[in-house]
Amino acid sequence: VGEPEIQELVAAAGRAAKRAAASLAHADGNAVSAALRGMVERLASAAPVLLEANRADVAAAEAGGMAEALIDRLRLGEDRLRGMADQILTLAETPDDPVVASVHELADGTRVEERRRPVGVIGANYEARPNVTVDVASQLLKSRNAGVLRTGGAALRSAAALLDEVIRPAIAAAGLDGDAIQLVRTPDRSAALALCSLPGLIPLVILRGSGETTATLATHAAANGVRTLAHAEGGGVLYVHAGADRETTLALMTAGLDRLGVCNRLNLLLVDESRWDELLPDLVAHLEGLGIRPSLPPHPHPRGHEWALDDGNEATVTIDRVAGARAAAEVANEDTSGLAATIVTEDRAAAREFIAAYAGTGAFWNVTTRLLDGFKLLAAPETGINVDHVPGPRGPVTFRDLHLRQYVVTPAG
Amino acid sequence: VGEPEIQELVAAAGRAAKRAAASLAHADGNAVSAALRGMVERLASAAPVLLEANRADVAAAEAGGMAEALIDRLRLGEDRLRGMADQILTLAETPDDPVVASVHELADGTRVEERRRPVGVIGANYEARPNVTVDVASQLLKSRNAGVLRTGGAALRSAAALLDEVIRPAIAAAGLDGDAIQLVRTPDRSAALALCSLPGLIPLVILRGSGETTATLATHAAANGVRTLAHAEGGGVLYVHAGADRETTLALMTAGLDRLGVCNRLNLLLVDESRWDELLPDLVAHLEGLGIRPSLPPHPHPRGHEWALDDGNEATVTIDRVAGARAAAEVANEDTSGLAATIVTEDRAAAREFIAAYAGTGAFWNVTTRLLDGFKLLAAPETGINVDHVPGPRGPVTFRDLHLRQYVVTPAG
Repeated sequence: VGEPEIQELVAAAGRAAKRAAASLAHADGNAVSAALRGMVERLASAAPVLLEANRADVAAAEAGGMAEALIDRLRLGEDRLRGMADQILTLAETPDDPVVASVHELADGTRVEERRRPVGVIGANYEARPNVTVDVASQLLKSRNAGVLRTGGAALRSAAALLDEVIRPAIAAAGLDGDAIQLVRTPDRSAALALCSLPGLIPLVILRGSGETTATLATHAAANGVRTLAHAEGGGVLYVHAGADRETTLALMTAGLDRLGVCNRLNLLLVDESRWDELLPDLVAHLEGLGIRPSLPPHPHPRGHEWALDDGNEATVTIDRVAGARAAAEVANEDTSGLAATIVTEDRAAAREFIAAYAGTGAFWNVTTRLLDGFKLLAAPETGINVDHVPGPRGPVTFRDLHLRQYVVTPAG
Repeated sequence: VGEPEIQELVAAAGRAAKRAAASLAHADGNAVSAALRGMVERLASAAPVLLEANRADVAAAEAGGMAEALIDRLRLGEDRLRGMADQILTLAETPDDPVVASVHELADGTRVEERRRPVGVIGANYEARPNVTVDVASQLLKSRNAGVLRTGGAALRSAAALLDEVIRPAIAAAGLDGDAIQLVRTPDRSAALALCSLPGLIPLVILRGSGETTATLATHAAANGVRTLAHAEGGGVLYVHAGADRETTLALMTAGLDRLGVCNRLNLLLVDESRWDELLPDLVAHLEGLGIRPSLPPHPHPRGHEWALDDGNEATVTIDRVAGARAAAEVANEDTSGLAATIVTEDRAAAREFIAAYAGTGAFWNVTTRLLDGFKLLAAPETGINVDHVPGPRGPVTFRDLHLRQYVVTPAG
């Protein structure tokens, strides 16, 4: 299948989603909840078919020599299906934001309502993880948006089974348009580029995952007039202030390194120069106890280098010294993506100074950057993360963010 | 001056603004008000210098053969200076939104604050209208953002005088960093491209004005990782429903055509087919009475063609027939930029149907689209207009929108 065919495949999905979007925009809350609960039921009743499709994906991935960590993310089991169902149930039980965000009257009595209205069609591109298909589909439905999903080719059988056996029938059974969620049914990688090139059909695309691929897609989308919610980079910062408690510091290091492949893990450890000589041996020993290699200055890499994206070197943390809270915040601003940064200190004024100077999406005090997560922070499943320095959804993006601002203006009386 | 010099000129302005941005971010409300009031005073006390600089701009423009309508927008007088001062006073008296947008606690008592924080440095590109320099500068200051301004070359002397005699001294006298607002001091058009190509210094650029130039700059910015708030196109829609009152219709036509060069004027008149034969002669006669040429079907141009941007043909309105409220909304969605559309009707259900189906930034009932304006609708001067179909500031953009979302997370207690 050549590129024009792929482009047309995605465009056809976009057109079908757009036709469904208009009716979905004003879908009743009960219908949406019914569709979400229908997905929960079907995740159980269709489990044999889903697991069978997934076994075929896993077998093909193993035959192709996929790394075990990736195969683990690809694999479905009864427990993962239950986890997906639990997340959808939480979403079904979360109240909708009111459609009318604010109301005021002009001097002559004219009524001005600010309303939230769905975007229409939202694209989503994500790695070969079957659970994300259901995650994104349920969040789009909750936000009354239609969607075009594109998953990594290795998960295509699983994604298709989830769409055909779970998502589409649940939406249709609730009286909504089953076409609302479309899946791009090709493993061809150029489908991701096509998804980011149709502003008239898919004006917004959520790019899950970090790294080179995401950066390339974001640039391609921008050049084509398509907006994205994305974070090509991540990397948590932990700044050990002069007033830091030693035990709190070690605990935050441990908490920030419970997983190494995630964007909000501890990546850069900044130590105040006043504590450098005293603490460095302990910090290094603590890292080594966690199986982590410290990268000490002078660094043969940029200070913000993200280890989670460095294949084979994930078990590394960069350490550097800084002169004070403001300087630490500025390093985090300039040398990292601005995802999240923590100050460790017992000194409230220093915490305030650090938080005021840090411009990233999560400014934390004595709390691990691993908390920078929609579900943990906002009790809503995370649609994606955005680290742009522009107004709009930023930091963890949830279904609550997937709307447009509209002013509805009506005469007095 | 070649392109690298222009790029460096803009970058230098960006660096100076960025240095000032950090202190401005947390500027006290009293200091900001003092700076704004200082601008008001200086607009009066420096009037002779300002008018002298403006006379030089106007003389050069006249010598260069600039059209009279553009010279009128370029010209300053005592009355325009007073108008600018009044607008700044309104801004000074408008309360700031609270920094903390919301607060909640997690199960373990961890406190999560959603905060508004300034973007940092915002660029603005606008036509040769001296008042916009003060407009944008005052709004950036109010929103605690530093800025890099670039005006059409014909207004450069006026803009420089406003910066040197009004804006900078007023900011400095209030104890804030006088570097906060920078002006790109070259008439070279490539400065606009440079302004849209420095994401590390100027991540967001407001593009005032419509048309080809804005579209080109928006594309250039996107390709360079710079976000814009812009509307390359406008054009108000007026839909005459089956249940429209004749007098209301004519009054809304008149109101929508009080100015012809503006984006929110009446551009496309849609008439319900049930009223077409009856009303068309009256509507055409009414337009002709207003000095407007009706463009009737079959049209030799796209249905959404924007007359405000069609040099020499501004005094035109496109007329077409449609089958019902939903069809009218769909034409407005598909064939226009989605700025604003009005339904004329006495039928509440039809108004509801139209408003539900229209996806543009202003959905109006028996109210002119000329009301799609930050000042008229939201009582705050308009920084710009954005018609993107994505979350974030959309429709009239005011100083209230120029902030980033940040989560500040602190431990219990």
